[in-house]
Amino acid sequence: MEPLELSVILDAALDVFQEHGFHGATVREIARRVGMTVPALYYHHENKESLLAALLELGAEEAAWRVRAAADEAAGRRDLQFANVIEAIVLYVTCRTRLAIIDAELRYLSPRARRRYAARRKVVENVLTEVIEAGSAEGVFTVSDPAETSRALLGMCQSIARWYRPGDRLKPADVASRYVDIALQTVGAQPS
Amino acid sequence: MEPLELSVILDAALDVFQEHGFHGATVREIARRVGMTVPALYYHHENKESLLAALLELGAEEAAWRVRAAADEAAGRRDLQFANVIEAIVLYVTCRTRLAIIDAELRYLSPRARRRYAARRKVVENVLTEVIEAGSAEGVFTVSDPAETSRALLGMCQSIARWYRPGDRLKPADVASRYVDIALQTVGAQPS
Repeated sequence: MEPLELSVILDAALDVFQEHGFHGATVREIARRVGMTVPALYYHHENKESLLAALLELGAEEAAWRVRAAADEAAGRRDLQFANVIEAIVLYVTCRTRLAIIDAELRYLSPRARRRYAARRKVVENVLTEVIEAGSAEGVFTVSDPAETSRALLGMCQSIARWYRPGDRLKPADVASRYVDIALQTVGAQPS
Repeated sequence: MEPLELSVILDAALDVFQEHGFHGATVREIARRVGMTVPALYYHHENKESLLAALLELGAEEAAWRVRAAADEAAGRRDLQFANVIEAIVLYVTCRTRLAIIDAELRYLSPRARRRYAARRKVVENVLTEVIEAGSAEGVFTVSDPAETSRALLGMCQSIARWYRPGDRLKPADVASRYVDIALQTVGAQPS
């Protein structure tokens, strides 16, 4: 996966949020790292919260299009489509660890920003749910509650961010292939 | 599950960590909530980090004994034992949401405290892995990599803390029963 393209401000903000958490981060420190004055930084981003919101939305946006593209690639073959979607989610989590880690800071967003972010993030869950529903209807998958299984699988993939670090012996593609097998079994399909 | 028994200091610290995150939390604020002076609080807990470490260890300790007890209860019947263990983990996450949420603050512990906590938390993962391994050896489960499946299932259960809130229409026992079914299928066993 190509490196993350962020403005220098957002790149510094991501580092500072990751190191100190949202409440420990200061706009002053972010400005210092990019060699900007605080007022100059405020010209681009309203406040600390809007920096976090911008980063979280950017991540949700990227995850959403990757997952949509993965689903489109194998439309019609449910097990392949499902495997593609899980693979895209795991590759996102393992290649975008910095973004995946700050996802926990979500709870510090204002209700309005949180709702907007939640809606974008919901795209990924919806695509996964639709694939599971379609596969169940076609008899390819055996799932009693597609929406719950979708949320559970998403949680399983997101939790990789708790332990995976770039440079691990295990490559993102290895992690993805293991999780595709586990997820296929979860929906009652045979691992490939 | 009986309410969490915490000292007044740890109870206040848990609230403050949850509201402000580790870096946003101050010992002054925690002391204020329990009506103590800062020096008096330092008499009980060395510093802010030791408060977080105490809370995380307490949670890991409780999760560990609950999961061990759940496994012991049905030793011999692997599918029941596995269902018991998953149920215990989900009940812990849904009944101890406050502790489950601050788990993300783990990354702010010193390497030493983090290693100690990780060792205690590993107990839960090890019990689950052993049950999956035993079930695979006995042909009750079909799992190609018990340790990876165990980590994945643990992540799936922990991620419930991202969306579950006490008082939700869905009761902890309902969530547990859904996740037991999903997890049984993940290890290739029939949901009960």
